[in-house]
Amino acid sequence: MMKKRLFTPGPISVPEEVLLEMAKPIIHHRTPEFLAIAEKVIENLKYFFQTENDVFIIAGSGTAAMEAAVVNTLLPGEKGIVISGGKFGERFVEILKAYGCVPIVIEPGWGNPVDIKLVEQTLRQNPDVRAFYATLVETSTATSFDIENLGKLVSGFPETIFIVDGISGLGAVECRTDQWNIDILVSGSQKALSLPPGLSFIAVSKKAWEKINTCRTPRYYLDLKKYKKAMEKFDFPFTMAVSLVCGLNKSLENIKQQGLENLWKVHKKRALAVRKAATAMGLEIFSKAPSDAVTAILLPQEIDGEKFCSDMRKEFGMSVAGGQDKLKGRVIRISHFGWQDDFDTISVVAGIEVMLNRYNFKVELGCGVREAMKILFST
Amino acid sequence: MMKKRLFTPGPISVPEEVLLEMAKPIIHHRTPEFLAIAEKVIENLKYFFQTENDVFIIAGSGTAAMEAAVVNTLLPGEKGIVISGGKFGERFVEILKAYGCVPIVIEPGWGNPVDIKLVEQTLRQNPDVRAFYATLVETSTATSFDIENLGKLVSGFPETIFIVDGISGLGAVECRTDQWNIDILVSGSQKALSLPPGLSFIAVSKKAWEKINTCRTPRYYLDLKKYKKAMEKFDFPFTMAVSLVCGLNKSLENIKQQGLENLWKVHKKRALAVRKAATAMGLEIFSKAPSDAVTAILLPQEIDGEKFCSDMRKEFGMSVAGGQDKLKGRVIRISHFGWQDDFDTISVVAGIEVMLNRYNFKVELGCGVREAMKILFST
Repeated sequence: MMKKRLFTPGPISVPEEVLLEMAKPIIHHRTPEFLAIAEKVIENLKYFFQTENDVFIIAGSGTAAMEAAVVNTLLPGEKGIVISGGKFGERFVEILKAYGCVPIVIEPGWGNPVDIKLVEQTLRQNPDVRAFYATLVETSTATSFDIENLGKLVSGFPETIFIVDGISGLGAVECRTDQWNIDILVSGSQKALSLPPGLSFIAVSKKAWEKINTCRTPRYYLDLKKYKKAMEKFDFPFTMAVSLVCGLNKSLENIKQQGLENLWKVHKKRALAVRKAATAMGLEIFSKAPSDAVTAILLPQEIDGEKFCSDMRKEFGMSVAGGQDKLKGRVIRISHFGWQDDFDTISVVAGIEVMLNRYNFKVELGCGVREAMKILFST
Repeated sequence: MMKKRLFTPGPISVPEEVLLEMAKPIIHHRTPEFLAIAEKVIENLKYFFQTENDVFIIAGSGTAAMEAAVVNTLLPGEKGIVISGGKFGERFVEILKAYGCVPIVIEPGWGNPVDIKLVEQTLRQNPDVRAFYATLVETSTATSFDIENLGKLVSGFPETIFIVDGISGLGAVECRTDQWNIDILVSGSQKALSLPPGLSFIAVSKKAWEKINTCRTPRYYLDLKKYKKAMEKFDFPFTMAVSLVCGLNKSLENIKQQGLENLWKVHKKRALAVRKAATAMGLEIFSKAPSDAVTAILLPQEIDGEKFCSDMRKEFGMSVAGGQDKLKGRVIRISHFGWQDDFDTISVVAGIEVMLNRYNFKVELGCGVREAMKILFST
């Protein structure tokens, strides 16, 4: 029997304490007991989102919350600017198209930061744009986007709301919903919250509510007005995934105790450790604006990345992610969020070193681990 | 919240699959369902013990089985030779004394192997010796004893049975009950079997049964005749710890699948890796006959070992054991058994490196990890 270690950018390992919380007897979702938990969860989610806006929980994957962000605010035929720097930027484009909305796509190229001047120009050239979509951390390329400055920019356009996909980034990297003028921020449970997949979250500003209240785009399960009405009693419009919410309660308590700033620091340190380790092994980081949530390492051309990942899983019990779409077979992606610690970071670096050697890409054993240890344990 | 890693020489981490097995609804211990499990467990325990002799399960800690080995075979006033190379050798001496038996103690000195010539001489000088006690792996000093050759020697004395404490060693290091002429071998659940503490085991040869059947030393709970009678129906004389036995069933299945020889190899490799790492850090191994089950590393004199262990736990969530009795504060002991893998070995080596530096014993970060990796991943 082999130990399993998840370094995939979701799902991730869940702390035993949280698993135990979720293994407790199921509570009915319309009982005072559960509603008290929900009230506490919502309060702590606001801290996690750094917002005083409404935050809702949707039973569904992150894409459900992305779709909710679109269908509640944009009418068919209306225009939205999408920064699409990878697979998940593209998802916003697909959702807009599915509802007959008109995406104006800014493509910085996979792994590149966005040119803020170009964004400003696009906004000015399209005064009829009603929504602006960006990604906090693009998982497919392990790239961070400058949400703070994009928020500043979009906030100057009173008719345009700023919508951010924070699924992979929230909790892992700095993100301040209110301070950064984010009108709608969505996230999911299976990332920095260290939970199984199954819950998504959406924070909604007053500016966004003005659109939601009058938006006639068809929706039912994802109708945020239903969520707002139910939330007056800390309730949910549809049967909630109660065990996941109980796990969320535990997970948010842990995060509050640690402090969000400390959580960001931990991710920053682990990501830097893996980048330094990769460099020491003679490998390159794919992204020009690497995120602290996920790292994508370019593999030597002669190595089949899909097989490499599969061998990491088979030989070492370590799940790292391969590339998607145009990066398929070319990169390995390592998450820094979820239930892992500095010694797990050392383990995955050691695993990569050994596997590279087995693929006849010779690296001195320990060369990456040493650099990672310097970063992880220098203080 | 901190990840926890147990490197103590028992208890150790338990695989999640085994924990889940034990979390299943409790079965009554006198049902066909449980007796079928017990039958399979006994069969697999015989494989684990490498024996065709009887093997019994006692609900109790390892010491209970050690005591059973004494009280079922030796009369008050009868003599037994004990090789006492540490705290657990001493335990046999204490048990013998408690029952008015007469221990003849051979003390090789903590951490030293035993002089087989001296043993032979002692046996010849004491023809009235009825039992001979040795330890497979002395946990307090992390020392292995040459059970195979001791067994050969004792088997030449038809009135003397050979009793071995295999609590820390069995499953971790080579041990062949029948081939090595061991008449009574005892072990416990919280070591190489990767279970929580609570079960002990005892294998009994025909030669031992001749003594047991006529032995009038007072005993009740530990009376092996009761266990033998119940075992005819794969039953137990007293209420058995059913959930632990269900876990044992799973754990033995895992071991059978891996193969005992492979399990020994894994321990040999990890122990060697830690010894090489310690040497690279400029530290010494305490034992002159180091075991592959546990390693005891001598700390630099200026370091308080108790505090070092406590800091490893507080700072890194890693439980390593300190020294006992005369080694208190002087060594750290690291187990190689239980639910751990090569990456855990790397983690504990990395943890020790970092902690040594924090104690101002300067070691180059990664120097031990590199040596460990060479051993662990050279094949």
